[in-house]
Amino acid sequence: MLLYDSAVSGNCYKVRLLLAQLSLSYERREVDVIDRSNRAELLAGLNPALRVPTLVLDDGRSLAESNAILWHFARGTLYLPRDPFEQTKVLQWLFFEQYSHEPYIAVLRFWLAVAKLTPSGEEVEAKHKGGEAALDALERELELRPYLVGDAYTIADIALYAYTHVAGEAGFDLSARPATRAWLERVKSQPRHVPITD
Amino acid sequence: MLLYDSAVSGNCYKVRLLLAQLSLSYERREVDVIDRSNRAELLAGLNPALRVPTLVLDDGRSLAESNAILWHFARGTLYLPRDPFEQTKVLQWLFFEQYSHEPYIAVLRFWLAVAKLTPSGEEVEAKHKGGEAALDALERELELRPYLVGDAYTIADIALYAYTHVAGEAGFDLSARPATRAWLERVKSQPRHVPITD
Repeated sequence: MLLYDSAVSGNCYKVRLLLAQLSLSYERREVDVIDRSNRAELLAGLNPALRVPTLVLDDGRSLAESNAILWHFARGTLYLPRDPFEQTKVLQWLFFEQYSHEPYIAVLRFWLAVAKLTPSGEEVEAKHKGGEAALDALERELELRPYLVGDAYTIADIALYAYTHVAGEAGFDLSARPATRAWLERVKSQPRHVPITD
Repeated sequence: MLLYDSAVSGNCYKVRLLLAQLSLSYERREVDVIDRSNRAELLAGLNPALRVPTLVLDDGRSLAESNAILWHFARGTLYLPRDPFEQTKVLQWLFFEQYSHEPYIAVLRFWLAVAKLTPSGEEVEAKHKGGEAALDALERELELRPYLVGDAYTIADIALYAYTHVAGEAGFDLSARPATRAWLERVKSQPRHVPITD
């Protein structure tokens, strides 16, 4: 398999983390996340959104959207519950991540820590506010249970871990969120965990 | 079942459309999408994001995120393919919708046609540009096939139809997108289709 990847992208890291935990091997091709001028050339026909991660299977078929790729490989493994209601709850968290978490925390981290842009105070404030709300929602949930769905580690935890564990790079403070911090440690201690820098 | 709903929301409409096509009955409770001051009171404990749609099952368990709710009810029906790869492709389009389509087209429609706000020219332009890119991606895909996944109508079509068919309310022009227009007609002609205004 071939993963169109970015070493700094949390969305790509989700896929790398699950594939490591499943002991699946693949080739990585680094795609520039700052100069995006070659995206159509690289990804047209593979991913309608022209984003990374994009995965090309050995038979040539392609998959896009980080959380859809997680689902694809987790199906039938320990990382996706068997119960249909719990499967829906996993999806609920995956959509929460892409709509209410990533657009704030990942985008602010990209601006400040990756692309080193200088957004206006107003732009930073809007992203910070949305990210705080997402982190508050996560903290409330993790006060109730050790993992996001059921009592075991799933791809819902992988998806939310990806940008939560680097939220400090975007100026978010997790020190007053003890349930989240304990959960980050639980995620990190899973078998075959790899860091984002791998 | 009880659906926390908004008559004007395309995200809620997705759920209403699928439940109509599955001939499932439910109660609707209208939630204000402009004055959001009662959201925590209504939805805390039911939906971490405090958004509509939120669905409460007869046994009291709740589901959130429109596209996760679609998946939940489509599982095992005609509206979700059985093939695992095609299921992943459905999810790919559901995530595309929530990340690359809805945040532009639905938000701009909300500003202009629902809340009647007066965003700056710059804000409108940013949303318009993102929405045009999403509509272009959709057109390219629909030039190749009659429905988004496989050769049949699925929840991927429901999810993308919801805000595409009202994109005109946000100032998007579909006249130069013939494949999209033909697809909108195909979706509309499905058995038990209901309009957003129902």
